[in-house]
Amino acid sequence: MSILKLSAFIATVPFASLADPLPSWTESDSKQQIIGFVEAVTDPANKDYVTPAERIAVFDNDGTLWAEQPVYFQFIFAMDRLTEMAEQDPSILTTPALKAAAKGDVATVLDGGHDALIEVVNASHSGVSVDAFQDSVTTWLEIARHPETNLPYDQMTYQPMVELLRYLRDEDFKTYIVSGGGLHFMRVFADHAYGIPPEQILGTYGETTYDASGGSPVINKTPGIAFVDDKDGKPINIERTIGRRPILAGGNSDGDFAMMEWTTAGEGPRLGVLIHHTDADREWAYDRESAVGRLVDGLDKGPEMGWVMVDMANDWSRIYTGAN
Amino acid sequence: MSILKLSAFIATVPFASLADPLPSWTESDSKQQIIGFVEAVTDPANKDYVTPAERIAVFDNDGTLWAEQPVYFQFIFAMDRLTEMAEQDPSILTTPALKAAAKGDVATVLDGGHDALIEVVNASHSGVSVDAFQDSVTTWLEIARHPETNLPYDQMTYQPMVELLRYLRDEDFKTYIVSGGGLHFMRVFADHAYGIPPEQILGTYGETTYDASGGSPVINKTPGIAFVDDKDGKPINIERTIGRRPILAGGNSDGDFAMMEWTTAGEGPRLGVLIHHTDADREWAYDRESAVGRLVDGLDKGPEMGWVMVDMANDWSRIYTGAN
Repeated sequence: MSILKLSAFIATVPFASLADPLPSWTESDSKQQIIGFVEAVTDPANKDYVTPAERIAVFDNDGTLWAEQPVYFQFIFAMDRLTEMAEQDPSILTTPALKAAAKGDVATVLDGGHDALIEVVNASHSGVSVDAFQDSVTTWLEIARHPETNLPYDQMTYQPMVELLRYLRDEDFKTYIVSGGGLHFMRVFADHAYGIPPEQILGTYGETTYDASGGSPVINKTPGIAFVDDKDGKPINIERTIGRRPILAGGNSDGDFAMMEWTTAGEGPRLGVLIHHTDADREWAYDRESAVGRLVDGLDKGPEMGWVMVDMANDWSRIYTGAN
Repeated sequence: MSILKLSAFIATVPFASLADPLPSWTESDSKQQIIGFVEAVTDPANKDYVTPAERIAVFDNDGTLWAEQPVYFQFIFAMDRLTEMAEQDPSILTTPALKAAAKGDVATVLDGGHDALIEVVNASHSGVSVDAFQDSVTTWLEIARHPETNLPYDQMTYQPMVELLRYLRDEDFKTYIVSGGGLHFMRVFADHAYGIPPEQILGTYGETTYDASGGSPVINKTPGIAFVDDKDGKPINIERTIGRRPILAGGNSDGDFAMMEWTTAGEGPRLGVLIHHTDADREWAYDRESAVGRLVDGLDKGPEMGWVMVDMANDWSRIYTGAN
């Protein structure tokens, strides 16, 4: 088609249908707020214009970019990995929490509190090189299926959010994940699932060591959590790693509150996008009382801070990137 | 000029003089090794081709991108800042090390060893918001002059390295600083001095806190060093922050050895660039015996690892970006 014919063709198509950057979002206020913000900060003639270098957008992962029920997917991975490791060597299950985890007994592990979780994380996420650990995540993602949807976990990403990430990048935003989840775990799928490369992923991380003693240097994962990327840790990690205050932040739980508060309290145009899980039919409905993804502060204070309060049931015409 | 006329013009100019990406490098082996590497990894027809996403280049700062004699410039900043703070409130000089630092008495501070240095860093680099701290660095860079060259410190960057950084970016490399120097200190000048944005700077960092109690949330610098980005810390921090093994690493001291070893031991094409300070006339000549920028391992093992051993006196036709 020639340029002239193409122009004529475009002129006959309603602009919105040709250009809709967020097709899985219904024509709601949420969608309009997001598009209005992006159009303002990318228009050099607009008073709210922001240079591309400062167009930093940060997103939580669990419950914001993919599902997190009935329990964080990385926790399911940890239990599956422990089960597999124990098949090779049962003696590694040295504590009640580890024995429970290897049986997939979530309740008992959670009853053990913080110490039990650390035991499970240390046993399943250390004593291995970063490369070998990430290979095990790759294999798990290929095999494992969600107990309720039967989808591979990396197809339980939210189609509307994948569209939002792409839209922002198309408009010269740099998109980051800032998650309480594990850095090395997320890096395995974030590039193909979200288009977010390893260097734009911030998360909780364990201790690592550099070992060149074997001739070929390697980075190993060792026991102990070096940094928890949750609550106040999120703005701290963003400042430390990115060094700029984002202009857009998306989250869904109280763990994201500080990140969204810091982002949206900055001078100039800012946008907070809070995902509220309201869809018991297509996903899950939970907030104030949930053990996973508890949301109180954002519900109470988000509206007065001007955040976009995304109502999943009403604002999203489709949920998962995988068939559903 | 029309395209045709432009083509004719280009055809009359010797290609090298038009295209030389490293004009401040003499026509040495070092320059040829660097250009040969970059041409190989960017040529899709070459067996050593590397996709743009994997073209990660990391550089030390002190002694690699700018000078570091007679003592790390950040240390001079710390002393200047302490002097200024003490003029407002002399009671902050609570220890012999702090009193010495505020008088610019480097020797006494260094005699005090690690504890003395921590005292000076804590007193001069904490108790302030990140924003306010960085404002103080900006002001210092405007006023302070190097005791021997009388240049502003951010003009004591090395012109050949600034050209190398630009050349790499023109060839779709992503350039990073990975320095034992302070993260917040470097971010103030790295963008204008090197074209490296805040999110591509890794360095040593102190503890920070998120404080929203005053209504307007702020990140504050508090006492204590959270991470030392030196020696093994460099590959650890690169893995943690970038999540990819670089294909090119530049450094000048034993603090850079692990980063360069890890980089160049990777599979496929890799390049190590070691800056050897050999120019007592135009800069400084030092290596094995130097208190600052001590270089032993790189000199001994670099050649057998195939590193480019940059001889400043012979390989660089110009040293500083500032007049000299």
